[in-house]
Amino acid sequence: MSTEGQVITCKAAVAWEPKKPLSIETIEVAPPKAGEVRVKILATGVCHTDSFTLDGHDSEGKFPVILGHEGGGIVESVGEGVTDYAPGDHVIPLYTAQCYNCKFCESKKTNLCQKIRGTQGQGLMPDGTTRFTCKGKEVFHYMGCSTFAQYTVVAEISLAKVDPAAPLDKVCLLGCGITTGYGAAINTAGVEPGSTCAVWGLGAVGLATLMGCKAAGASRIIGVDINPAKFETAKKFGATECINPKDYNKPIQEVLVALTDGGLDYTFEAVGNVATMISTRPFQLVTGRVWKGTAFGGYKSRDSVPKLVDMYMKKELMVDEFVTFNLPLDKINEGFDLMHAGKSIRSIVALFE
Amino acid sequence: MSTEGQVITCKAAVAWEPKKPLSIETIEVAPPKAGEVRVKILATGVCHTDSFTLDGHDSEGKFPVILGHEGGGIVESVGEGVTDYAPGDHVIPLYTAQCYNCKFCESKKTNLCQKIRGTQGQGLMPDGTTRFTCKGKEVFHYMGCSTFAQYTVVAEISLAKVDPAAPLDKVCLLGCGITTGYGAAINTAGVEPGSTCAVWGLGAVGLATLMGCKAAGASRIIGVDINPAKFETAKKFGATECINPKDYNKPIQEVLVALTDGGLDYTFEAVGNVATMISTRPFQLVTGRVWKGTAFGGYKSRDSVPKLVDMYMKKELMVDEFVTFNLPLDKINEGFDLMHAGKSIRSIVALFE
Repeated sequence: MSTEGQVITCKAAVAWEPKKPLSIETIEVAPPKAGEVRVKILATGVCHTDSFTLDGHDSEGKFPVILGHEGGGIVESVGEGVTDYAPGDHVIPLYTAQCYNCKFCESKKTNLCQKIRGTQGQGLMPDGTTRFTCKGKEVFHYMGCSTFAQYTVVAEISLAKVDPAAPLDKVCLLGCGITTGYGAAINTAGVEPGSTCAVWGLGAVGLATLMGCKAAGASRIIGVDINPAKFETAKKFGATECINPKDYNKPIQEVLVALTDGGLDYTFEAVGNVATMISTRPFQLVTGRVWKGTAFGGYKSRDSVPKLVDMYMKKELMVDEFVTFNLPLDKINEGFDLMHAGKSIRSIVALFE
Repeated sequence: MSTEGQVITCKAAVAWEPKKPLSIETIEVAPPKAGEVRVKILATGVCHTDSFTLDGHDSEGKFPVILGHEGGGIVESVGEGVTDYAPGDHVIPLYTAQCYNCKFCESKKTNLCQKIRGTQGQGLMPDGTTRFTCKGKEVFHYMGCSTFAQYTVVAEISLAKVDPAAPLDKVCLLGCGITTGYGAAINTAGVEPGSTCAVWGLGAVGLATLMGCKAAGASRIIGVDINPAKFETAKKFGATECINPKDYNKPIQEVLVALTDGGLDYTFEAVGNVATMISTRPFQLVTGRVWKGTAFGGYKSRDSVPKLVDMYMKKELMVDEFVTFNLPLDKINEGFDLMHAGKSIRSIVALFE
């Protein structure tokens, strides 16, 4: 029985308000409107960004909302005018759209797309409305993805079609964490062969950054973390050595400058700590350093995610190794707990039994 | 009568202690040691960096000291082993050395040179001593230059030999301010044809930045300053329009984003105000912006200063237009006053009558 054109009733993890656990609810998902695609989500990662919003820190955070932005699924139906996707296509929702014709998409300087940024930031579809309701209330979208639902609706420009042979419960991670870290080294920093690199924070993004540094041919890759339990894993992803700042009586930057004859070529902050990221003496900037930020690893999303999936299928990119826990939807809050406890790299939540 | 090998007694502006006017004194300048060059300084600019140190803000500032780092002169004598320079050569002292064989000189990532940075930062020559004495006291060097003296001694790697036809009382400015601003646009930012740019602060560095943006082919160059008296000059240097943030009730970045369909390609902070320079929401960095600092405009100093002088001689670079006042050495403190009052672009001090 086709669900096309029908409201779908399904399960989702709803965030009713900040700082409360997610609640597994029955929701209604309206059919896709023009330029939209409805996707059956099979698997989703749990990311610190979801937690950031759930904890009420996101200035754009609106509630109630269906979080999740690291998903993999199958197209259920498409709205009017959608020609790039058809039911059955395997897809990864993209929180960074790519419309191909805005000023930003036409620029080589950024991978961001302006087209639907305004409404996406308000938790709405491009027409300014939401496709989700629960218990009679409208529920907001999140980052244009909302992958913590069995069915979601996304803009067609926010979707990458990927190899149907790729396991969605693995490659969903290419929707955020792995791509961000890997691209930070490959695209944003542009690490060259022989470079010296250090990566602060050995979570999923940090490990992906190590992998990117290694792929770029860096000769020395130092993992930095205050949790030495992460060092063994870090070496599997490319770290040539690891350092715990707590083992030293002086600032870690002084230790590294001494170890590397004046400093490293590239350093990466993958902790997500603003103090680690941007606190410095202005003199450090004036003397010629470069600070770069990256969103989604600098990748133009629809162009790149299918290629990254292909690299994974050719075993050129580690993905399986990031998955440390698999959970059913009704245990999704455990995924947040494992992440906060530093016990997981990534937990994958299956949306269906 | 040759002065080679002799101690030279001459005039200098000595900074005996922080926050006091410079004092015109008779000093003794020892002959250059191995790898050093003694230079007769004919002209020097007065720069905000001199003032920064004189005001006691420079963590490396040591007193008594002979300030000045924007000079032009003629080689008086050379120390043992110096082959690149000979008496009579026209030279510009360089606060950023270029030794050609340290790790930094061999890197394309930086124009800084490690070779003598340690001693230079301590106000000493590379052997750890000073060549200046005054009233029986040792006087420190400054930024490896000390151009507020009729004679100075610098390391041979801190000197650019320039076209002897070039007027030293003009091209001395290529020793700092003009080169810094011009190179910020050309090298550090890498402005491309058709780019949109804005420059905060329309002093010497800002004006040189406008000139660099124009030379790089930027299509729109916005000068930003709270002193509208500078706008007419700014347009001569390349600004296509100027904006006074005080004319608006909202933050200037919002005004500019609205004026430029989403923002500018390149923005330059030439005020020297740390708040203007690096205060931001971290989100601005994470979404893919790039912060770059620049020292000496990213130019490898000995390679580039002679070429910039040649560009000036071919009228490809404005220099004369930066000189708004000419002062004798005994009026050097007026140069600081004019600068603080915002009345000068650059004052040039003549070391000899």
